[in-house]
Amino acid sequence: MYTKILLSAAIITSSLSASDLLSDAKKADLKPIPSDKKELLKLIDNPKNPITDRKIELGKKLYFDPRLSKSGFISCNSCHNLSEGGDDGIPAAIGHMWTANPHHLNSPTVYNSVFFASQFWDGRDPHLEAQAQGPMQAAPEMSATPEHVAGVVTSMPQYVADFKGAYGKDVKITFEKIADTIATFERTLVTPSAYDDFLNGKKNALTKAQKDGLRTFIDKGCVSCHNGIALGGEMNAFNITGTYKFQDVGDFKGDANGMVKVPTLRNITQTAPYFHNGQFWELKDAIKEMGRIQLGTDISDAEAASIEEFFKALEGRKDPVVLPQLPASTSTTPKPDLK
Amino acid sequence: MYTKILLSAAIITSSLSASDLLSDAKKADLKPIPSDKKELLKLIDNPKNPITDRKIELGKKLYFDPRLSKSGFISCNSCHNLSEGGDDGIPAAIGHMWTANPHHLNSPTVYNSVFFASQFWDGRDPHLEAQAQGPMQAAPEMSATPEHVAGVVTSMPQYVADFKGAYGKDVKITFEKIADTIATFERTLVTPSAYDDFLNGKKNALTKAQKDGLRTFIDKGCVSCHNGIALGGEMNAFNITGTYKFQDVGDFKGDANGMVKVPTLRNITQTAPYFHNGQFWELKDAIKEMGRIQLGTDISDAEAASIEEFFKALEGRKDPVVLPQLPASTSTTPKPDLK
Repeated sequence: MYTKILLSAAIITSSLSASDLLSDAKKADLKPIPSDKKELLKLIDNPKNPITDRKIELGKKLYFDPRLSKSGFISCNSCHNLSEGGDDGIPAAIGHMWTANPHHLNSPTVYNSVFFASQFWDGRDPHLEAQAQGPMQAAPEMSATPEHVAGVVTSMPQYVADFKGAYGKDVKITFEKIADTIATFERTLVTPSAYDDFLNGKKNALTKAQKDGLRTFIDKGCVSCHNGIALGGEMNAFNITGTYKFQDVGDFKGDANGMVKVPTLRNITQTAPYFHNGQFWELKDAIKEMGRIQLGTDISDAEAASIEEFFKALEGRKDPVVLPQLPASTSTTPKPDLK
Repeated sequence: MYTKILLSAAIITSSLSASDLLSDAKKADLKPIPSDKKELLKLIDNPKNPITDRKIELGKKLYFDPRLSKSGFISCNSCHNLSEGGDDGIPAAIGHMWTANPHHLNSPTVYNSVFFASQFWDGRDPHLEAQAQGPMQAAPEMSATPEHVAGVVTSMPQYVADFKGAYGKDVKITFEKIADTIATFERTLVTPSAYDDFLNGKKNALTKAQKDGLRTFIDKGCVSCHNGIALGGEMNAFNITGTYKFQDVGDFKGDANGMVKVPTLRNITQTAPYFHNGQFWELKDAIKEMGRIQLGTDISDAEAASIEEFFKALEGRKDPVVLPQLPASTSTTPKPDLK
């Protein structure tokens, strides 16, 4: 009897504290990926180019096609690897002719990038459609001209048929249309997690340690930048020309105001190394460093470990990706150029 | 009535000629991939390390894991791309630090490689298990030491659990065991096609043009080297130190007898460029060149086109490959080294 009362009290306390946590999370502008499919579609869709199954399938092919690069060896998936955390796991992105990113910038994850308010580390593009045009052309990435990309795609009857199927028979297969289609696929790469289940009202979706970690995450002030659906993705990040510089790693200057985009924390346990310059391999080091630079506060080892525990709840459920079968090159497909 | 008789005669003729073709194909040692699953398993299995679902799944993860390479950027799938024809579509293989294969050797397809009597262009290994050890270590490919590969795999609890699940709790996770597991996955990459359906008795599996092409293929003597299940894969190929040299492309000397392996013709429409040195982009050029060098005969444009038509019947049905989700690196995972 006594045990029973105690247990009930514990359940009530736990339940109450979960409610508090939920309410505090909402106050801190932490938002879940909606569990309702229609609501989610509204969030990720592009009204100018609505998502359809045919566009997704075609976009997936293009995403995995290394022939869009100058060398024929590098695809979107090379650096934004869907088998890893949606990135490449190396400090600075590498590309055509093994060239490292000249500013020593780390490849950001493509998963949940649809929720970012801005794309690229300097936030220069707001939309995935514009973003997708960048790496294909960048000399140290895929190093292709728009003409090469369009030339590759239009040289294969299967791709032409796919574009007609996706956009209608009068479609013009331009570089921009190709990038738009890749972006459509990327818009669907959304990974809901236990954290979302919790925010969506499933109180026991998080372990006790994860709830404690979320509490620490809120209380230490991490949420001042890592908020919204992506827990990041906006330009309210630290000023690298200010008090702190990653002086020895790259020469990245951020945007016009010296600002760097806040990265998402979703799947963060799977996307080491960390920061725009890939400086830290250990999450606890990254957490403590952010406390010091951004929040002007010491985050203890125990607090960092608690926050790291919460990050495990951000490991998302990834829809199975069936590897596309790419159409075969034809005699008019531009040849790979490895130089 | 008259029409009816004529039609029946045509059907009988067609049926008879299909039977002749089938019988001639068998005489020429052309063999189908068995349609019977058990019979197929017996052909592709390794009695020393029997295929199981768990080994296949684990092998697939390893096949797609770029962290097995020194740089963390190159996986088996980079050069033997399952989205393309099981190869990379570039003349000479490229790898660590963008190094081209020093002998200008073309990446062979992994699809149906289980049917090859020997692996590598010089046929130096008979089995996929031995083959899989090569590219991981080769300096211009994945450039990893066996210690690196084993170190990466054993650093991740999920991989360790996967190995225990596949081989039992006392498994020793060595470089050799890792290569064996990759090979197990590769053994399953078999692509039956319309050609197999025809050889297995489905007389209308091939179009008229494809049957004519098969007839040309047999009559011109291509089958003297391109035979067996793989339509190739043995060492009875041309002697590159003999009358003909690809003098300007690479310095590959073949095996001890100057011989080069006969490549498979399965999915050949998807694996340009052709020959061990990737010299030809067009199938018809490759076909005519082989006639000249190997058979000492002229193959006309019409005959080459007919053979090429037959090759379309070798485009195989590929089982859908769901992209694996790789375990996250840990603090003990060897760091990528891009130099």
